[in-house]
Amino acid sequence: MEFEKYYEDRKKLINSFLEKRIAAKGISKVDEAMRYSLLAGGKRIRPLLLMATAEAIGKNGYNYLPVACGLEMIHTYSLIHDDLPLMDDDDYRRGRLTNHKVFGDAMALLAGDALLTLAFEVMLEQKNVSPDVLIETVREVAMCAGNFGMVGGQVLDMEAEGREISLAELNTLHSAKTGALFVAAVRSGARLAGADAKQLLALTRYAELTGLAFQIIDDILDVEGNPEEMGKAAGSDAKRHKSTYVTAYTLVGAKAFADKTINEALACLQPFGDKAEPLKEITGMICSRHN
Amino acid sequence: MEFEKYYEDRKKLINSFLEKRIAAKGISKVDEAMRYSLLAGGKRIRPLLLMATAEAIGKNGYNYLPVACGLEMIHTYSLIHDDLPLMDDDDYRRGRLTNHKVFGDAMALLAGDALLTLAFEVMLEQKNVSPDVLIETVREVAMCAGNFGMVGGQVLDMEAEGREISLAELNTLHSAKTGALFVAAVRSGARLAGADAKQLLALTRYAELTGLAFQIIDDILDVEGNPEEMGKAAGSDAKRHKSTYVTAYTLVGAKAFADKTINEALACLQPFGDKAEPLKEITGMICSRHN
Repeated sequence: MEFEKYYEDRKKLINSFLEKRIAAKGISKVDEAMRYSLLAGGKRIRPLLLMATAEAIGKNGYNYLPVACGLEMIHTYSLIHDDLPLMDDDDYRRGRLTNHKVFGDAMALLAGDALLTLAFEVMLEQKNVSPDVLIETVREVAMCAGNFGMVGGQVLDMEAEGREISLAELNTLHSAKTGALFVAAVRSGARLAGADAKQLLALTRYAELTGLAFQIIDDILDVEGNPEEMGKAAGSDAKRHKSTYVTAYTLVGAKAFADKTINEALACLQPFGDKAEPLKEITGMICSRHN
Repeated sequence: MEFEKYYEDRKKLINSFLEKRIAAKGISKVDEAMRYSLLAGGKRIRPLLLMATAEAIGKNGYNYLPVACGLEMIHTYSLIHDDLPLMDDDDYRRGRLTNHKVFGDAMALLAGDALLTLAFEVMLEQKNVSPDVLIETVREVAMCAGNFGMVGGQVLDMEAEGREISLAELNTLHSAKTGALFVAAVRSGARLAGADAKQLLALTRYAELTGLAFQIIDDILDVEGNPEEMGKAAGSDAKRHKSTYVTAYTLVGAKAFADKTINEALACLQPFGDKAEPLKEITGMICSRHN
């Protein structure tokens, strides 16, 4: 109950920052397409993670909205491009028509490009931190989002389609595709809040494991999820003959692996005591998608 | 002759920086696709502009290769996305098959995404400048490349296709689509080199006019250019019923407008004296595409 309020408060702040930071009317129609996907009511897990991590270090997460919301823009651009016909060709996302179904393929492509670009503009507006730390933080976000992180993982995912891949490959794929941006969120929050090296290490491990758990549960939901709750059709992985944690471990095994991963993630937070409560709750929230 | 050596020297530095900065082998095949387009031997006008502008302020352009090459990555990503079937559907670029013709549409999309992301990572590696100035510089690059700049202009261009647009609209379109990145290059060079407000203003105007001249000449070349020299087919604008500076001014009129614009651009450089010689030569080089 307490966390619900914590979550709602922060989500409101995140949404209002995003709302303000994308012009209702720019020089072209691309702003409308950007807003459509950015303000579609996602869970805001990445900005939330950033803010909660800063709080685990003893700083106020509210101070870091620009970098936090930049991460959400990066996440959103990746979804828009992912849904394009030349990629996954999905018609629904978060319970609404995908960007290209509403605005056309070319506009969706450009809305994604513009969101990625705006993410960096917005992150570099961050105050309340020394310029050196901000540069290092945003540079690392780029690293996590690019060819050695999210985009690289996306390509591995693409290349894995239609063939069986080893568990090692599956792990590499997801630690890049999903994990890297979780890591970016948590490490950004830690850096901005002035974490020391030991704290940064523990939080990085927490983020890696949380990202992994998130992906395992995503694979589980694709098999047994409720399309209405998920806002997209179930069974799409099987339809594409994709290797997933469910195909690797079976459904029961994947659930056990998810639980084990979540417990390991939570253990990383022990040194932070009560201040890491929100982070623990966020992990729990990701876990509760199980139901 | 002297400028030829100047140009070749800098192009070598730019190319070798780009070559080094994109891994020959990353975690996925996307690096290969990124390298294919980035190392395809472009003119490197944007990084060159940045370096020459720094020199006009009295600094060594070599010191600013990270930001300079980031701009080239942004330019290259925009070409890759532009060539996609869902956009212009071009088969050739710089005399070679376009990225998606070699690597497929999905890979080309992601190579573009990764290049845009890497651009910010690389720009934020810039040393030889105070962190404050770097943040402001890179933030402005993002602004020029996004929904209020290059991408916004791209959308305006798309929306203008197949209908006649006014000269005012054409100017807005091109000052965003092409001009903004020229402005970003010149203003970045000026900022990094420590230009004062008056210098920044003159150089900004120079960049706007040079971007405009560049676009006018592009439109002229599309009508009368040699496909082999251009590395792409001529007449593509007409085929698409696009409004261009040629349709607005006629071919003769467009050439006169280009010359007038170039002269105005060069006039902005007067206060910088001999130190702006390279910038003048670069403008001349753009102009010489005329032949």
